[in-house]
Amino acid sequence: MPRTSPLEEARRNFIPQLPEAFSRLAQSETPLKVGVVLSGGQAPGGHNVISGLFDALRSIHPQSELIGFVNGPKGILSNDFISLNEEAIAPYRNQGGFHIIGSGRDKIESEDHFSTALRVCSELDLDGLVIIGGDDSNTNAYFLSDYFAKHQAKTVVVGVPKTIDGDLQNKDIAISFGFDTATKIYSETIGNIAKDALSARKYYFFIKLMGRSASHVALECALQTQPNHTLIGEEIAEKEMHLEEVVNQLANLIEERAQHDKHYGLILIPEGIIEFIPDMKVLVSELNQLISEGKDLSHLSGEAQKTFSLLPKTIQEQLLLDRDPHGNVQVSKIETEKLFIEMVSKKLDPSIPFKAQGIFCGYEGRSAMPSFFDTHYCYALGHTAASLIAAKKNGYMATVQNLSKPIQEWTPHFSLIEAMLHTEIRKGKEKRVIKKALVECSREPFLNFAKKRKTWKLEDSYVQIGPMQFFGPEEIQETRPLSLR
Amino acid sequence: MPRTSPLEEARRNFIPQLPEAFSRLAQSETPLKVGVVLSGGQAPGGHNVISGLFDALRSIHPQSELIGFVNGPKGILSNDFISLNEEAIAPYRNQGGFHIIGSGRDKIESEDHFSTALRVCSELDLDGLVIIGGDDSNTNAYFLSDYFAKHQAKTVVVGVPKTIDGDLQNKDIAISFGFDTATKIYSETIGNIAKDALSARKYYFFIKLMGRSASHVALECALQTQPNHTLIGEEIAEKEMHLEEVVNQLANLIEERAQHDKHYGLILIPEGIIEFIPDMKVLVSELNQLISEGKDLSHLSGEAQKTFSLLPKTIQEQLLLDRDPHGNVQVSKIETEKLFIEMVSKKLDPSIPFKAQGIFCGYEGRSAMPSFFDTHYCYALGHTAASLIAAKKNGYMATVQNLSKPIQEWTPHFSLIEAMLHTEIRKGKEKRVIKKALVECSREPFLNFAKKRKTWKLEDSYVQIGPMQFFGPEEIQETRPLSLR
Repeated sequence: MPRTSPLEEARRNFIPQLPEAFSRLAQSETPLKVGVVLSGGQAPGGHNVISGLFDALRSIHPQSELIGFVNGPKGILSNDFISLNEEAIAPYRNQGGFHIIGSGRDKIESEDHFSTALRVCSELDLDGLVIIGGDDSNTNAYFLSDYFAKHQAKTVVVGVPKTIDGDLQNKDIAISFGFDTATKIYSETIGNIAKDALSARKYYFFIKLMGRSASHVALECALQTQPNHTLIGEEIAEKEMHLEEVVNQLANLIEERAQHDKHYGLILIPEGIIEFIPDMKVLVSELNQLISEGKDLSHLSGEAQKTFSLLPKTIQEQLLLDRDPHGNVQVSKIETEKLFIEMVSKKLDPSIPFKAQGIFCGYEGRSAMPSFFDTHYCYALGHTAASLIAAKKNGYMATVQNLSKPIQEWTPHFSLIEAMLHTEIRKGKEKRVIKKALVECSREPFLNFAKKRKTWKLEDSYVQIGPMQFFGPEEIQETRPLSLR
Repeated sequence: MPRTSPLEEARRNFIPQLPEAFSRLAQSETPLKVGVVLSGGQAPGGHNVISGLFDALRSIHPQSELIGFVNGPKGILSNDFISLNEEAIAPYRNQGGFHIIGSGRDKIESEDHFSTALRVCSELDLDGLVIIGGDDSNTNAYFLSDYFAKHQAKTVVVGVPKTIDGDLQNKDIAISFGFDTATKIYSETIGNIAKDALSARKYYFFIKLMGRSASHVALECALQTQPNHTLIGEEIAEKEMHLEEVVNQLANLIEERAQHDKHYGLILIPEGIIEFIPDMKVLVSELNQLISEGKDLSHLSGEAQKTFSLLPKTIQEQLLLDRDPHGNVQVSKIETEKLFIEMVSKKLDPSIPFKAQGIFCGYEGRSAMPSFFDTHYCYALGHTAASLIAAKKNGYMATVQNLSKPIQEWTPHFSLIEAMLHTEIRKGKEKRVIKKALVECSREPFLNFAKKRKTWKLEDSYVQIGPMQFFGPEEIQETRPLSLR
């Protein structure tokens, strides 16, 4: 038997307390049979959605049955599942990770997939299929629900909003689950590094944060930790700041701090920054085009050639060599923290001392033990998903309202996925998808950040949130994301 | 006023409870005046040594005075200090970082330094000078105390054992302060990543751990988190394993796990690994020699040339280009996690899926909020240092006995630094220094690790210790390092 830590043990025995609205669930005369699947990257709280779903199904009817499709959506297509009974679920209660059934990045999106899924769900006689995923997985959940409806399937399809990136947000979804925990884990690290910078007074830390293209994670971490500067991709795009301007801005900050005898600091960089810098975007797009046509660099436009020439050699190599299976530049793999360190160091007046460390906050945030907020939010989402199935609601997403208020005021909510769709051009074709939510520079929480950041630049207002606490005073345990509207 | 987090606030108001032995301090008829300095890299708990020292001095005589020399030992030489009264100390109680007075890496080691320090301490009329530092700083503290004694100084010099690296250990020092917190921070991250590996089942994580040359940090983190493999530098040196053997061992592990359909895993790498691999050590030493003589690579010995040719191109470049101010290879800057990833990937049978991520756990461990253990240990060290000064003990290190037992059984201890010295050849000269403690492969805790690791290789016995807790059950808050003897 593997050793477990005392905290893992304590968390297993914890029971999240939800308001009555979540337990006042429809009763069912017959047991329900439900399948659940985890789709895409890990997010803290996935196990709580599953345990919440299980507990709610059993409360609806004691003989209700839950099965978990294994290793993501392909588990549905290959009819590969395990039974999730109390014994199977117990060790995973309130734990990080998705390993109870695993996850996967395959998609159920073609007519073939839909018909296979229908056959599997019908043969299993499922009342409901719960798809826990991000914007794309929930988009696909909608199209699957539509297919099931057209074929008079018994199974209703229900979505659950998951992603640490925070880009699945709309009027029904204040925040996806996992975002709170991941940003707390990253903010713990950033806060620790801030105190280290302040103590040694000799390093600039360029900290890249996981979170895909949108800058929600960086914005939340900035509000939590108050670093000297934070790049917000959406702002850079809106202001059409070119790479050189971004670098100049950083160099100016460093020079201004140097005048106050401060040769240290903290700079946050969102993972997706490259996609927002206009000239980098042009360069990447031209490079993808050239490679697909088998042409060499001399065919780049003048502007793209100029941008390319500004880049450090290692980054040039990454752009040319690290390609995905379709031959495209792997934007997320570019070491942007190193790119900015090297470019800033060349821009600075050589009389200014500049030592820098690049840091990446990433994988450790995806499978951490869920925070108090995510523990309860996910358990509530599981209950809401069960209600949807009991009420035979097809094509809905389980959501929770009043998330910024005390848990006693939370209410379950049924949100029609179709109402979240809009039309986008993807790969040259019109497609109805759930819109990826970006940071909006004209609204909160960005405005709050924009107001405060002037002070953070020169004064060292760093905040160390410290490690997440699962015991002790409410005001320490129960904190919410600061960017929650 | 900068925002502080709720946890920072709560920790400021926490008062560590020590056994009576620490409060039964000598009274003094006259107030004591004491200087304190932080030397070298940050370690969690430094602020508690200072607050413990202050509280104890005030309890010895209410008019006692504490001053802090600023930004490390050079603060002594330049007579640069601030007064540490209750108001100055209050915001730093139980907090991470060294920023109350800053730290620095300058050394007080020459006759000139000694005489300046003597003049400064005499002019300030100090009863004691407390030097909080690692093995080198405490070695220098001894020689300073000796100089002070020979010059009939009033000031006694007292050392305090600090370093996250764990290499300041002997029969008097079970563990230096900061090691517990840093390894808990790293183990939190490793545990989170372990669950992520287990969930996605597609990445090998090569995790490099700060901790200088000795492998104590890696060993402690291995005991805490139970990864699939951990390189222990001292073992590799003892077995004279060449680079290729180390790589083969890793490749075998990955191939064996692949046979069990496991294409993921965790490998821990101590920061100082290069210095223990015999052929790498030869290569680095020859490179340093060549460069100092202005010769090119063709002058490397056959063995060194072979080793060099095995290395990935990026690492070859790092060896040739990244030099310290003396022209030496910067061993600690070599990205060993990438070195092993690249070499292993070339060694593996191409039919085996292998995706890897390199991760570095470093700066975030040095200035974290001190754990329960370090909070109390450091506060106790401060009290012991005050007793030493009241008792006019010169050239002693403050230590605490029975650290593996409940706090009620801890006792203050006066340890003669001179008794810790041995003779080493440094830069071609005999020098008396405190011996850096390495991992001993014939003793605990290594033996315990060696017994268990066979199981960890193929089974996934990962433990997620989770974030440090400052409230809640004793068995969760009060854990000690597992490698504490």
